[in-house]
Amino acid sequence: MLPTAVIERAQQEMLEWGDSGMSVMEMSHRGKDYMSIAQSAEANLREVMGIPDNYKVLFLQGGASSQFAMVPMNLLQGKSGADYLNTGMWSKKAVAEAKRYCDVNVAADTSEGGFCSVPTQESLKLNADAAYVHYTPNETIGGVEFDYVPETGDVPLVADMSSTILSRPMDVSKYGVIYAGAQKNIGPAGLTIAIVREDLIGNAMENTPVMFNYETHAKSDSMYNTPPTYSWYMAGLVFEWIKEQGGLAAMGEINQRKANKIYELIDSSDFYGNPVDKNGRSWMNVPFTLADAELDGAFLAGAAERGLVTLKGHRSVGGMRASIYNAMPESGVDTLVEFMKEFEQQNG
Amino acid sequence: MLPTAVIERAQQEMLEWGDSGMSVMEMSHRGKDYMSIAQSAEANLREVMGIPDNYKVLFLQGGASSQFAMVPMNLLQGKSGADYLNTGMWSKKAVAEAKRYCDVNVAADTSEGGFCSVPTQESLKLNADAAYVHYTPNETIGGVEFDYVPETGDVPLVADMSSTILSRPMDVSKYGVIYAGAQKNIGPAGLTIAIVREDLIGNAMENTPVMFNYETHAKSDSMYNTPPTYSWYMAGLVFEWIKEQGGLAAMGEINQRKANKIYELIDSSDFYGNPVDKNGRSWMNVPFTLADAELDGAFLAGAAERGLVTLKGHRSVGGMRASIYNAMPESGVDTLVEFMKEFEQQNG
Repeated sequence: MLPTAVIERAQQEMLEWGDSGMSVMEMSHRGKDYMSIAQSAEANLREVMGIPDNYKVLFLQGGASSQFAMVPMNLLQGKSGADYLNTGMWSKKAVAEAKRYCDVNVAADTSEGGFCSVPTQESLKLNADAAYVHYTPNETIGGVEFDYVPETGDVPLVADMSSTILSRPMDVSKYGVIYAGAQKNIGPAGLTIAIVREDLIGNAMENTPVMFNYETHAKSDSMYNTPPTYSWYMAGLVFEWIKEQGGLAAMGEINQRKANKIYELIDSSDFYGNPVDKNGRSWMNVPFTLADAELDGAFLAGAAERGLVTLKGHRSVGGMRASIYNAMPESGVDTLVEFMKEFEQQNG
Repeated sequence: MLPTAVIERAQQEMLEWGDSGMSVMEMSHRGKDYMSIAQSAEANLREVMGIPDNYKVLFLQGGASSQFAMVPMNLLQGKSGADYLNTGMWSKKAVAEAKRYCDVNVAADTSEGGFCSVPTQESLKLNADAAYVHYTPNETIGGVEFDYVPETGDVPLVADMSSTILSRPMDVSKYGVIYAGAQKNIGPAGLTIAIVREDLIGNAMENTPVMFNYETHAKSDSMYNTPPTYSWYMAGLVFEWIKEQGGLAAMGEINQRKANKIYELIDSSDFYGNPVDKNGRSWMNVPFTLADAELDGAFLAGAAERGLVTLKGHRSVGGMRASIYNAMPESGVDTLVEFMKEFEQQNG
């Protein structure tokens, strides 16, 4: 989902951007017009997130799945292992790919409890010699979100923020690398953003493809080859939109309120359930079940009638999942909550 | 450049695709609507290019620069070396990346002549034990294009067709792998298409990132992770547009005519020059020089006044370059030729 205002602006600018005589899609990435679009997008992201000067912002391709390899390839820097916190499906994928390049120490694992909790800081079995610590602040499928930033001392912290970036204010300086596929909170698919502390750039493994080396992109302002120009432009529109909403502080307030409305209904009802520990509940993805799974089909059909779509839970967990990213307006959540109440009254 | 009809249709469909209730940019890549867009794009590409059933069509990210590593990583299959034809700037980049993974036998090299010719079949120093032969059918910067398909016997032929794919009919069955960044003749940047013979899939090098393994994408219909959905959709619109134009036979006739108009003017003039051997002249990129390089600025300014932009040659070769990809209408070439004549009359 994208903010309606953003899509409408993109539509207006589709045939001609400014007085450039062409569509953004047709611009050379090295031309003056596109460079201004690209640079202004980066400047706005830096402003919105408060990214310190000693971090590079890279506009990449390949999704978080590519970062699962790029992180070890770039950050091992001669060390033999890294720490991973395993808190859900995305962590698991990151671990599987990292194992192909290094020894993975699973420093926390919540799989036994069905990925329904966040490990405490005290429970983390961190290795002081690890090249880095990798975690997934928000797990989309389980709907589990860390309510704290792990403390890792001098070991760089790496976060797959695909589904939680830009959802609230955060302290970038606590991280070595933050990466995120664009398609949740940033813009259309096809763009991946990596925010990398400069001292971690420049020591990639020997066989790292040029395109998987952070240094390649850091040195060329992400213009080593043609970047995903249109997605980058759309991301820039989203960053402007966030500024207009009042920045991440405002987004955080709205997002917390949106999530609370759904969780409050779930907790006040015997008809709906959510298995996640209260302190680990995601603001972005709210999985929930109906007391009687046989009603799932009727629930989805009724929701679709009100324009509430893509509510079906991931095939691995079943049930429902409300993804309430930044672009979902509070009124959309209100419509969902109202429908859930009605459906419970009729079927509970 | 994209066909105007394609951009206009994209604009119309921007806010809502069909009666889906959402923009293509907002669709889940696994949803019914997006799957139909993706499958129909592939079907149309297969039809337009006549792609045999034993080839997979992969919709990837990362550009040709990523293929420079993916090709050796996937095709070496235990062999130690591969043959590369070095005919320009893009070949050189492919060679440099391949050298990091295998012994590169440069089977032809036209750099001494300034990359102004195409090596003959007889001159190729091919190695029968090579894992594959890689070449660049069209070099965008030099404006050099092969006028034949190299014969490589049982050794798979690999082609970087970024700047010539879809420009005319071709026999896909002569190739092991064809790859192309989308941004010349296919659609917006951010999409890379690889057409891979099935028997070449499944034996990638040990350290190949999952996302760099053709098998990952072949097995999942390019949906292993979120693909560049919007660029894929736009590519589909371009494939439909090509069908409406009469397919690749028609595109080839138009493209040859467009190129001939410019080359004829250059050859009939002492004012303009093109250094490329006649048999190796590109249909897609026509580099040319003015007799007096001091006039370059005035030429570019006059051209821009007529809406003829991005005519400046690559910084490595200077002069001018007319890129006349599929989306450049014949009338645009007529305008250019007319302006060139006038400019010569006034300044020659």
